[in-house]
Amino acid sequence: MNDMATNTDPRAYDRLTARFARMATVEEAMSMLGWDQAAVMPDGGSDARADQLAVLSGLAHTMLTDTVAAEDLDAAEAAPPGDPAARRNLELMRRAHRQANAVPGDLVEALTRHAATCENIWRGARKASDFKMVATPLADLLALTREKAAALAAVSGLDRYDALIDTYQPGITAGEITPVFARYEAFLREALPRAEALQAARDHQRPGAAPFAEAAQEALCRRLAAQVGLDFTGARLDRSTHPFCGGTPTDIRITTRYDEADFASALMGVLHETGHALYEAGLPRDHARQPVGTAAGMAAHESQSLIIEMQAARSDAYLGFLGPVLAEAFGQEVAAFAPDRLAARLRHVGRSFIRVEADEMTYPAHVILRYRLEAAMIAGDLAVTDLPGAWNEGMRDLLGITPPDDARGCLQDIHWYCGLFGYFPSYTLGAMAAAQLMAAARAAVPTIDAGLARGDFGPLLGWLRTHVHRHGAAYGFNDLLRQATGKPLDPADFEAHLTARYLTA
Amino acid sequence: MNDMATNTDPRAYDRLTARFARMATVEEAMSMLGWDQAAVMPDGGSDARADQLAVLSGLAHTMLTDTVAAEDLDAAEAAPPGDPAARRNLELMRRAHRQANAVPGDLVEALTRHAATCENIWRGARKASDFKMVATPLADLLALTREKAAALAAVSGLDRYDALIDTYQPGITAGEITPVFARYEAFLREALPRAEALQAARDHQRPGAAPFAEAAQEALCRRLAAQVGLDFTGARLDRSTHPFCGGTPTDIRITTRYDEADFASALMGVLHETGHALYEAGLPRDHARQPVGTAAGMAAHESQSLIIEMQAARSDAYLGFLGPVLAEAFGQEVAAFAPDRLAARLRHVGRSFIRVEADEMTYPAHVILRYRLEAAMIAGDLAVTDLPGAWNEGMRDLLGITPPDDARGCLQDIHWYCGLFGYFPSYTLGAMAAAQLMAAARAAVPTIDAGLARGDFGPLLGWLRTHVHRHGAAYGFNDLLRQATGKPLDPADFEAHLTARYLTA
Repeated sequence: MNDMATNTDPRAYDRLTARFARMATVEEAMSMLGWDQAAVMPDGGSDARADQLAVLSGLAHTMLTDTVAAEDLDAAEAAPPGDPAARRNLELMRRAHRQANAVPGDLVEALTRHAATCENIWRGARKASDFKMVATPLADLLALTREKAAALAAVSGLDRYDALIDTYQPGITAGEITPVFARYEAFLREALPRAEALQAARDHQRPGAAPFAEAAQEALCRRLAAQVGLDFTGARLDRSTHPFCGGTPTDIRITTRYDEADFASALMGVLHETGHALYEAGLPRDHARQPVGTAAGMAAHESQSLIIEMQAARSDAYLGFLGPVLAEAFGQEVAAFAPDRLAARLRHVGRSFIRVEADEMTYPAHVILRYRLEAAMIAGDLAVTDLPGAWNEGMRDLLGITPPDDARGCLQDIHWYCGLFGYFPSYTLGAMAAAQLMAAARAAVPTIDAGLARGDFGPLLGWLRTHVHRHGAAYGFNDLLRQATGKPLDPADFEAHLTARYLTA
Repeated sequence: MNDMATNTDPRAYDRLTARFARMATVEEAMSMLGWDQAAVMPDGGSDARADQLAVLSGLAHTMLTDTVAAEDLDAAEAAPPGDPAARRNLELMRRAHRQANAVPGDLVEALTRHAATCENIWRGARKASDFKMVATPLADLLALTREKAAALAAVSGLDRYDALIDTYQPGITAGEITPVFARYEAFLREALPRAEALQAARDHQRPGAAPFAEAAQEALCRRLAAQVGLDFTGARLDRSTHPFCGGTPTDIRITTRYDEADFASALMGVLHETGHALYEAGLPRDHARQPVGTAAGMAAHESQSLIIEMQAARSDAYLGFLGPVLAEAFGQEVAAFAPDRLAARLRHVGRSFIRVEADEMTYPAHVILRYRLEAAMIAGDLAVTDLPGAWNEGMRDLLGITPPDDARGCLQDIHWYCGLFGYFPSYTLGAMAAAQLMAAARAAVPTIDAGLARGDFGPLLGWLRTHVHRHGAAYGFNDLLRQATGKPLDPADFEAHLTARYLTA
């Protein structure tokens, strides 16, 4: 009787939801401090900020590793809640607990601290285009990450690299990704030259006349993000070197960077981050700060940014709407932003060095390169000192171009330098999922393109809220796609999308 | 042998410094989130932010209340460190521990949460000038504060209100403050009419011609703060409703508000906050994040803002420097900013409603009013619903004026609405200490005024760094004054300063 009472304590699950809510709240604070660091912090704050993030990260970690958490999980599982969302929540709690307890607390703190330090040094190294400046901090961070991967692998039965991927997009392994990426590589080798040839045969005049004043760009970004559905009473738009979307569902922080020679870079960046923001804002509020109330993983998240940026905002329908808006924003002729000229910028295909500026057809090549390099680094088959050479060789092989310097090579992305290994595949899985979701949405809601043609994302957003956002993490990546589109990830939809957009004369 | 080893564990003190450093780091994170809330947070973030601050506050509190902290304190005290700074640090750790353990963790969290909520409602109530909007949240917050005061009183042997004062300026009680304030009230009743009469006999043309463009004001504030000694590689200047100085010693966050009709409000506000900032930046770096490395209390802090703003920046010497700088900043004639016209604004004495805009002679009356009201509220002798009436009556008695609305009455200050009771006396104790320190500094460093006459705060700042900043909390308030000026707090220096500045024809 006494044993029974202990093992099936009906309050155990409630105590767990309180514990996870506190942990999520600490993580919210960290997200805000991360925004501050990237967007507004003076240089003098770097060391103190690294300490702050390390201590908070350690505290959040402790909440998952004390003995009461383990006892409550055992007790709650002995008498699982009847509500399916609560049962799924409990499953995800167990998963988080298993991952957290695999990694010792001092390793978590060391990782956070080294990541903040390495990230700061990387900012200088990228500016100086000098990989050697950051090679040692990166090697230290990689060594710690490999320790973490080994610890995660030990409890999950996954390979080390798979164990890292699993922390960003649960349920996806290299075993699933490798053939999908190989298939795409084959598609690209055949499609890219054809797309380039078709493009060469067309008129290439780019839209508008530079300079595009920064203030006008910022006002335009703000206006269009709001029109897509971002509520600025619970969001900000600021500047940072590397654009991102952070904050909390009711206080979203989007950043971008402006280039007066090219309005499209900031605008498309903001629409991309708006896609992320809408997912966060659309998560089930009644499961706020619970595992089941979060996004279904980073590939799922990227599908939501790319369905806005790539599928919707570069569609024929939206380009027609965008022209007059741009003309007005920059005080230029409407004809300068005609659909064919907009397409010459927004749908230009090319072999280029910078991932975040790449077109959607070559973007996966950038990801495939990083996927292979980071898999080799985690496996111990590639040393950090050999990274610049391996990078440049990979670029030559995949896209036939050689980066002229490290700033346009292996220094361009923040990810590895802040400890994100296993994250990159999510971008391309997300792009593929976005194409698959868009095809399903168009089939289900015939008014989507008519909406986009007048700048109205309502029909699309309504479908996304119902079929993606409101589910939170109730489903895994493939199950989410299955309930929304009737099938798991299918790279054919992405190829069909690219074929329609780039391979028809 | 075994007992001895436990009781005099030589690592106990080191463990305590690590513990206090972690706690201070969490408090730094809270300070940054506080800045964010006041300066940049969208409205949608209020509830989540209140939760974040409450959780972090609870975590910091827990670090002082777990049993290991108590054991380590006992062990460290059994064999105190030989270094005097470390011994003082241990004393201050015990004091913090005693205070923290007096207040239950759930009360600390409730206070933080209610304070954030009440502060947000107050922002709306002040805008609407409607005290009723915020009366209930304030009454709730007062009830919690009285609980806290009772708990603190129980462990310290102080009265309830004294126990609150002690959390802001250790070692000062109402028993010391009441006669100092009564003496000042008597001085003011005699001095204010004389100062007003002398002022009426002079020319009153105010400096320059409005509007003073906000952008020009901001650039000027930034330039002069830097010239006073603020290093912007470790500081920011932003905007908020209520100006403050927050952040950390290497990442200081100053805020102000701009009024295009009056350049002096923002400028003097920024110089005031710069004084606070210089104190923080000058604290002993080798005791960073330790109790002994923090400021010596809020009255000590205010002495550092007021010695910059009131003593130095409104001195004859600095007004002579300021004139041409202002003329250039606003593109106006130098004659428009002649010393007598600057004095007509920067040394104008008058009976006014708003504390933060009050001149230095009437400012203490605003503080004395708040001191008496909050003492009565904490004692249970004044109900929140009676506050607006008592406020207006006090203003009539002390300054002979009646606030026309609550925005210009009891709603004007953030303090009570974010839970700060016992803080107000620090302002006037600080003003008195500033006069005392300035007199001692001038006696010791004859070049101070020559420096100010060319905008150079170096000689003054050098003396402050040596005699105030670098001591951190090594001394209590009166001992700090004693080692710097040869005597404890002496209100005569402040009266002498006012007499020289306002009561000589």
